[in-house]
Amino acid sequence: MKIRYLTLLTAAMATFAGVALGDTGGGDVSPIYGVKLPDGYRQWALVAPAQEAAPLDELRAVLGNDLAIKAYQASTLPFPDGTVLVKLAWKHVQSPEFEPASIPGAATTVQVMVKDSSKYASTGGWGVGRFINGKPADEAQHQTCFACHQARVQNHDFVFTRWVP
Amino acid sequence: MKIRYLTLLTAAMATFAGVALGDTGGGDVSPIYGVKLPDGYRQWALVAPAQEAAPLDELRAVLGNDLAIKAYQASTLPFPDGTVLVKLAWKHVQSPEFEPASIPGAATTVQVMVKDSSKYASTGGWGVGRFINGKPADEAQHQTCFACHQARVQNHDFVFTRWVP
Repeated sequence: MKIRYLTLLTAAMATFAGVALGDTGGGDVSPIYGVKLPDGYRQWALVAPAQEAAPLDELRAVLGNDLAIKAYQASTLPFPDGTVLVKLAWKHVQSPEFEPASIPGAATTVQVMVKDSSKYASTGGWGVGRFINGKPADEAQHQTCFACHQARVQNHDFVFTRWVP
Repeated sequence: MKIRYLTLLTAAMATFAGVALGDTGGGDVSPIYGVKLPDGYRQWALVAPAQEAAPLDELRAVLGNDLAIKAYQASTLPFPDGTVLVKLAWKHVQSPEFEPASIPGAATTVQVMVKDSSKYASTGGWGVGRFINGKPADEAQHQTCFACHQARVQNHDFVFTRWVP
């Protein structure tokens, strides 16, 4: 009976760990960081849109969870642990209905940044994941993220995107 | 006592009318339609971003209230009464931190579409408002909206923007 209790307890702890953001327990988490696509992110509020020039030719939008949006609105830096940012990206195509406009075409990547200042201490407190069709990209793609953020936006807690009213 | 009751009732009815979307009771509502900027719209979920070519040179993002997002996700057409869409627009400027990217600059207009199939029966069920620095644009700017939506996107309930996953 005691062994059975321990087994259940262990299973419960594993389940608990499995639902935590950034867990490395499944096949759908990013290499190096173990970040997964957060539930419900498509309903999160907008931080800002952006456009990426050729050769990528993308329209993009960064969304944030509640902690992220509150931090942006209060100009809180560094972002608190638990902040999650998600950048959606689509190919950039001309609108068939209104010629001066270009609109999202095929989705390309979804990129996630998760703030956990202990777990990701060596990368500015951020764990990252880049997903294509819901699956994490390879390790090589994840090795390049931090150096660029560190070189360019260390003064904004390693985050490029600013809030726009 | 009876007069006093009637006065209170009248005041209550006026207050009720005043909080309804699309009311014409204040100086901050659009001409023709009487649409106001809805409370809290900046926290609404994203429908899609877009880009507008020169001479406007804008980045844009359409946000929707809960009814709008549910209708989009379920491909419900026409949109139900109570649907509100808000399009934010900013000048389109190069990122000083990452050259291939362009990002929002100064805010330009905020445009609102409110669905009320009775009140706005003569314009496809939609009332519209175009705001600059929080103030409605003039009547001439509001006279051009519906003809363009009617000519180009009548088959999508007069709405240009599509949901992107």
